[in-house]
Amino acid sequence: MTRIARLAERLSRPLLVTRPANIRYLTGMGDSSNAALLVEPDGEATFYTDFRYADAARALQDVTFVQTQRYVIGALASLLAGREIGADPEHLPFARWEELRAGGVTPVPAGGDVEALRAVKDASEVDAIRRAAAISDTVFAELATERFVGRTERELVWQLDRRFRELGAERSSFDTMVGAGEMGARPHGEARDEKIPAGTMVVVDGGCVVDGYCSDCTRTFLTGDEPRLRELYDICLQAQLDGLAAVRAGVTGRDADAASRVAIAAAGLGERFGHGLGHGVGLEIHEAPSLRPESTDTLVAGNIVTVEPGIYLDGDVGVRIEDLVLVTEDGCERLTTVTKEPIVVG
Amino acid sequence: MTRIARLAERLSRPLLVTRPANIRYLTGMGDSSNAALLVEPDGEATFYTDFRYADAARALQDVTFVQTQRYVIGALASLLAGREIGADPEHLPFARWEELRAGGVTPVPAGGDVEALRAVKDASEVDAIRRAAAISDTVFAELATERFVGRTERELVWQLDRRFRELGAERSSFDTMVGAGEMGARPHGEARDEKIPAGTMVVVDGGCVVDGYCSDCTRTFLTGDEPRLRELYDICLQAQLDGLAAVRAGVTGRDADAASRVAIAAAGLGERFGHGLGHGVGLEIHEAPSLRPESTDTLVAGNIVTVEPGIYLDGDVGVRIEDLVLVTEDGCERLTTVTKEPIVVG
Repeated sequence: MTRIARLAERLSRPLLVTRPANIRYLTGMGDSSNAALLVEPDGEATFYTDFRYADAARALQDVTFVQTQRYVIGALASLLAGREIGADPEHLPFARWEELRAGGVTPVPAGGDVEALRAVKDASEVDAIRRAAAISDTVFAELATERFVGRTERELVWQLDRRFRELGAERSSFDTMVGAGEMGARPHGEARDEKIPAGTMVVVDGGCVVDGYCSDCTRTFLTGDEPRLRELYDICLQAQLDGLAAVRAGVTGRDADAASRVAIAAAGLGERFGHGLGHGVGLEIHEAPSLRPESTDTLVAGNIVTVEPGIYLDGDVGVRIEDLVLVTEDGCERLTTVTKEPIVVG
Repeated sequence: MTRIARLAERLSRPLLVTRPANIRYLTGMGDSSNAALLVEPDGEATFYTDFRYADAARALQDVTFVQTQRYVIGALASLLAGREIGADPEHLPFARWEELRAGGVTPVPAGGDVEALRAVKDASEVDAIRRAAAISDTVFAELATERFVGRTERELVWQLDRRFRELGAERSSFDTMVGAGEMGARPHGEARDEKIPAGTMVVVDGGCVVDGYCSDCTRTFLTGDEPRLRELYDICLQAQLDGLAAVRAGVTGRDADAASRVAIAAAGLGERFGHGLGHGVGLEIHEAPSLRPESTDTLVAGNIVTVEPGIYLDGDVGVRIEDLVLVTEDGCERLTTVTKEPIVVG
């Protein structure tokens, strides 16, 4: 059964799919800045885009292609006038929603159906992510043999990005992060041109894309063999192992998250782990399900999620350890297999 | 006068800035997935983001920082209840707009003020784009000496991306495009793993980012010295030169666009130039002003725009030639200066 057919089974009214990753998942169409897919409950699907993507659109299977004027939503406002259409309120801008309404369409908030399908990976998706993770494993293993002290964060970012590509990835999954000291203490830091000092920790978060699918991995390296750093590292590693041990089909994202907080809280650092344990990964680097205190998701076999607790001491140092795992009925399989032993680099 | 102060002068009510590039322009804050800046007409500015970006946010000048719960718009719905707030209907998703309303905020569509400031570059912005364009010039000049035939489109993409970075750029401005033959006939093609054949044309569209600012350049290479290809190339080049000649302060985006269509239409290929002549470039690769038939913009000195006519013969071959230019009072200055003579590559 095609992905469009599986989506149609979930629908009680037509759904207008506008998120590029959802369009790619359903049609195979590469990212377009101006495309929409209308899926009817009976499985009929119509793909709308403009001149620039028309040649690619004509090659798609299982969809009828309609070429529109430049602004696809504007065209749909008249093409679909009089109809009640599900649309994604988390993606469609307010102005586009109003434009549909003004044209006579009745948009109805409807999100999450494609995301729910995407959250459970099929064999070809698992295979792509496995290959992406294998590349990032190699690149992280290489990095562990590099000199860190005296080189800049941006130099090391480039080393990762370059090796991802040289090993066959399409691109990095996101802006690769290398953060030493206080920059590592920012969960979303930006690499600097400053030299990495000795006696601190360096958080390295990176992944790459193979056949459209992302990998995601974080390791933290020590530039000094100091007890304080090792202790922080070990607390984070324990939290990460506890998180891994909790992940299996049937567990809620909330409970998995909670399991990884025990060791950090016990060390009096609970407030320093200020983000969720993890997130789904696939065509996008952040997708369903989520593993966090507010999550309403329950894990199922075939989810691919990150398990990435962190401890962030503002203005000082940070540590985060992240694996990408495939959720199975009785646990999870690590897709990132590079060592998590603390590594002291030069 | 700060950028925030210049924005405030344009405002009659508070403006909620949510587009990452607008936030970066006003505050210098790097991209955050969850941030908002409220600018009051009196110039007061409050920056809202969550834990993950708090350390960076505290370092910002000229703004008051308020740390919010994870979802910043949800927090703002209560923090700003009872107030009438301008917000960008082209950026804020319908659900976020409704969330503000549900919390008691009255959001009023208000977009384009920051974009209008961004459209006119100051000296530091011109300098950054000049440096980015200098790097892409070097990389395109190197490319002209490379072998094309027998190598894949993706190999050449990697050559450009690698050299952008090696020469100091932060990243490529967008997914670098190398399209041979029928892929070059797609205005937004995707590089393939297939080998580039002799006797065709290869459209190469790429740029890089320096200090957050983008360059953008397209050249088309010939893999065979065939009269038909040269003829198409020359028509496109004439159109590009006509476009350049038309660009100066005071000219409308529509008229500049029209000027570049004359030569292509005269050759009976008017329908094969299916996109606009160009677009503004800055922190984003596509920004104001626009040069196209539907444009309502008038060019002013300090705009930086692309001039990029193309001819696309479906399933056969495409040609596009693009310069990035700085609009001046009496014309424009090319920032991309690599040769536009037709180059036959091996």
